[in-house]
Amino acid sequence: MPPGEFELIERYFRGPAEALRRQRGDVALGIGDDAALLQVPPGMQLVAALDTLVEGRHFPAGTPPESLGHRALAVNLSDLAAMGAEPAWFLLSLTMPEARVDFLEDLSRGLLNLAQEHRVALVGGDTTSGPLSVSVQALGLVQPGTALQRNAARPGDLLFVSGTPGDAAAGLALEMGTPPGREVAAAQQQWLRRRFLFPTPRLALGQALRGLASACIDVSDGLAADAGKLAQASGCGARIDVERLPISAALQARLGIAAVRAALTGGDDYELCFTVAPSRVDEVPARLANVKCPVTCIGVLEEAAGVRALDRGMPIGFELRGYDHFIGAG
Amino acid sequence: MPPGEFELIERYFRGPAEALRRQRGDVALGIGDDAALLQVPPGMQLVAALDTLVEGRHFPAGTPPESLGHRALAVNLSDLAAMGAEPAWFLLSLTMPEARVDFLEDLSRGLLNLAQEHRVALVGGDTTSGPLSVSVQALGLVQPGTALQRNAARPGDLLFVSGTPGDAAAGLALEMGTPPGREVAAAQQQWLRRRFLFPTPRLALGQALRGLASACIDVSDGLAADAGKLAQASGCGARIDVERLPISAALQARLGIAAVRAALTGGDDYELCFTVAPSRVDEVPARLANVKCPVTCIGVLEEAAGVRALDRGMPIGFELRGYDHFIGAG
Repeated sequence: MPPGEFELIERYFRGPAEALRRQRGDVALGIGDDAALLQVPPGMQLVAALDTLVEGRHFPAGTPPESLGHRALAVNLSDLAAMGAEPAWFLLSLTMPEARVDFLEDLSRGLLNLAQEHRVALVGGDTTSGPLSVSVQALGLVQPGTALQRNAARPGDLLFVSGTPGDAAAGLALEMGTPPGREVAAAQQQWLRRRFLFPTPRLALGQALRGLASACIDVSDGLAADAGKLAQASGCGARIDVERLPISAALQARLGIAAVRAALTGGDDYELCFTVAPSRVDEVPARLANVKCPVTCIGVLEEAAGVRALDRGMPIGFELRGYDHFIGAG
Repeated sequence: MPPGEFELIERYFRGPAEALRRQRGDVALGIGDDAALLQVPPGMQLVAALDTLVEGRHFPAGTPPESLGHRALAVNLSDLAAMGAEPAWFLLSLTMPEARVDFLEDLSRGLLNLAQEHRVALVGGDTTSGPLSVSVQALGLVQPGTALQRNAARPGDLLFVSGTPGDAAAGLALEMGTPPGREVAAAQQQWLRRRFLFPTPRLALGQALRGLASACIDVSDGLAADAGKLAQASGCGARIDVERLPISAALQARLGIAAVRAALTGGDDYELCFTVAPSRVDEVPARLANVKCPVTCIGVLEEAAGVRALDRGMPIGFELRGYDHFIGAG
């Protein structure tokens, strides 16, 4: 890219990042050198996640750049949420065909608004020309021994999910103009679209679950697939009672009877799926009293491997989405 | 990608990564969960860099995958080297059109051989399908207050460069079959190619320069451009005496009189460019006695902004390469 575009990046990223950096007080050196220098508080463990969004794979061509900026950070904050971590800093690697003022303005607004909301500081990265993709690397902190993991659930533990899964898949279908779907009110369409375009990383929920949940994962590849990964990592299986799935009114209106399938397999929800031992399930309401995010018990972990979905006791078939993420971060 | 390819990634990344993780002993949780959990030693500052290599931009189509794996990690380790940091961990985000066995085998070998050499552990990341690009996020450690930065050089400080800049640009031209260039011996051609394909991050040099160099930067966009960035960050300018530039025999044979220009502007060297106060320049040989990397004094920082190249006192013109990296990591 021509050197003149350097100033665009300075204006849209470096200036706003500087304000957040000053707020935090733990960034010794931010954007502008070969690497960032960060002060990890004594006794805290570092939590690191790296996820990339690729045009045509994680978002359709024509996705609003504000959404792209938001989602690139949100999917990484969601990984930190699934660990029960507090987000601290992030780095950005942006590849785009050309640096356009309106594109950068919108993308940086989406990214930095979410960063501001969670007080996570942009401390470095790079920008280059090429096919559109955005990598964010998020760093968070957690007290040693308290991080939520995938692998410590036991058969008998109850399975929960936050929010209303399936909305994002229906929102993406609306974005892409894909049938099928019923005509629904414009407000509901808009709400479903936003569930895809602006997912909410469940950071407060993840932090509140530390010491209570036996295992946790974020839902990126579909609830059944990710519940299955949690169960597999814990050496057991999972049963989902589909009549208990929390279905949003908008999803119900849009998909009718197919809403259940969207909730099971839809993907891109960035809700948390977690387990709680039966002896501690009574603690859930009090522990989550201040977390503005509903959670629903949707099933139980079982000895037998695999994920089963039952509708009032009758097994139903479903197909898992393919894996997007191969070497660990989900 | 089809789920069967999950096993390929497991085989080529997760297994080898596990061995390095055990060697280090500071990775509480590596590949396989939503994020990695890392133990930062008490009192150490965290150093974070994120760089992406994009096909057609940072490497030509057809680049051997072993080189791609090596370079993706090397350019990030080079950023840590420029800070004087010790590398500790890294995350990988790999986007590729399809997961082929031979490609993954070669790429992972290039990546993990370099990781093993520097005892830096792969702790997470993701893999997805799309246009070929590789993001690596490297994390390192440095004692607070000792990191090298770009911005603390002063007029009068002497300017140094490690190794022999310009080789990588000539090697890339050979890779791409680009004229011009003289016929040179096959061994010299091969050596120049390897200078592009397998750059050496100057980690030991960067660490040895802590407390001695007044400023440091790694050379990715060309020596003159990066010396200029160092000078600008320090609020001054730089003079390069081109007759002092260290030119390799292979580069001289290949380019003749044009070798000087390649050394000034070539790019992709991943050498270190650094400054030392005149009062401390006598300390350089002893300090670097155990570092297997020659360094050469090539000029001096001056009050006047900008970068000037002089050939035995006569100004020569040159064009800087465009900036590849916009928001800070270079």
